[in-house]
Amino acid sequence: MKLGEGVEAAIHCAAMLAGVEGNSTLAGAAMAEAFGLSPSYLLKHLNMLSAARILESVSGPGGGYRLARPAERISLLDIVLAVEGREPAFRCGEIRRNGPVRLDASAYVKPCGINVAMLKAERAYRAALAEAKLSDIVATYAAEGDPRSLAASCAFVERHQRPQKSSSTKQA
Amino acid sequence: MKLGEGVEAAIHCAAMLAGVEGNSTLAGAAMAEAFGLSPSYLLKHLNMLSAARILESVSGPGGGYRLARPAERISLLDIVLAVEGREPAFRCGEIRRNGPVRLDASAYVKPCGINVAMLKAERAYRAALAEAKLSDIVATYAAEGDPRSLAASCAFVERHQRPQKSSSTKQA
Repeated sequence: MKLGEGVEAAIHCAAMLAGVEGNSTLAGAAMAEAFGLSPSYLLKHLNMLSAARILESVSGPGGGYRLARPAERISLLDIVLAVEGREPAFRCGEIRRNGPVRLDASAYVKPCGINVAMLKAERAYRAALAEAKLSDIVATYAAEGDPRSLAASCAFVERHQRPQKSSSTKQA
Repeated sequence: MKLGEGVEAAIHCAAMLAGVEGNSTLAGAAMAEAFGLSPSYLLKHLNMLSAARILESVSGPGGGYRLARPAERISLLDIVLAVEGREPAFRCGEIRRNGPVRLDASAYVKPCGINVAMLKAERAYRAALAEAKLSDIVATYAAEGDPRSLAASCAFVERHQRPQKSSSTKQA
């Protein structure tokens, strides 16, 4: 089972954006610098978060990204599904139907018990991710993170955040 | 998040092997036929299950595979980890350390809170998979499966199972 590397980058960026003030934004290039990532690599994931309406993007030279809603209403599940897609991890290929004995489709009305069990486990995974809010991640970091790391992160956001005139420039 | 296609094949084969009698075996080719899969494709996954000691393989022309222990003591987690590897789905790349402000390693002694939250969700997933025993899958199929499908599966196993003289021929 694998999650793409983009998930880590996406969550870190969202957590950083939780720290910008008001309707200010951070440029993708600034977040790429903050995490030592290629800006083009990161842009792909930031656009996925924007498409899922987790982030808002403000276009133009002074633009960037900001959270589309409060961090309390963004879960790790929202971010994972935005980046990885909404398909379950287990994809039932209905191989039960492929064998030498071909039965009528009516024999397969009930879902395969293997798929049922795998999807049940995935619901447990998703429920745990849904419980983990971006605000919890940020609050735990603020309370328990290394003070040097915290100070460096806050200074970085303060230095790079870009105030916006109004929030009406948001794009879907 | 994705699980490889081999997981479905591996669980189906293990469930089919739960139906063989005594120390009989099923050949990989028979299971490939049962699920309409390429024998060489399936062999790879059967060997992973054998390496994880979920299956035993009996070599020779009359050999094949059987469960290495009762289906009650084989969980879907055992099978998923055998096929997919034991690494967590979320691989923390420690990108928090990559940015423009390089701090001493002592600033990162505590694990990243994002990794902690992702691993917590993975524990929920694994716990649900560990609870799902192969014997439950088989019992539910026996109780609720389509009778035609059940009859065809049982007949297939009866026709293809290969009795073995003793259980001492097992290989790791």
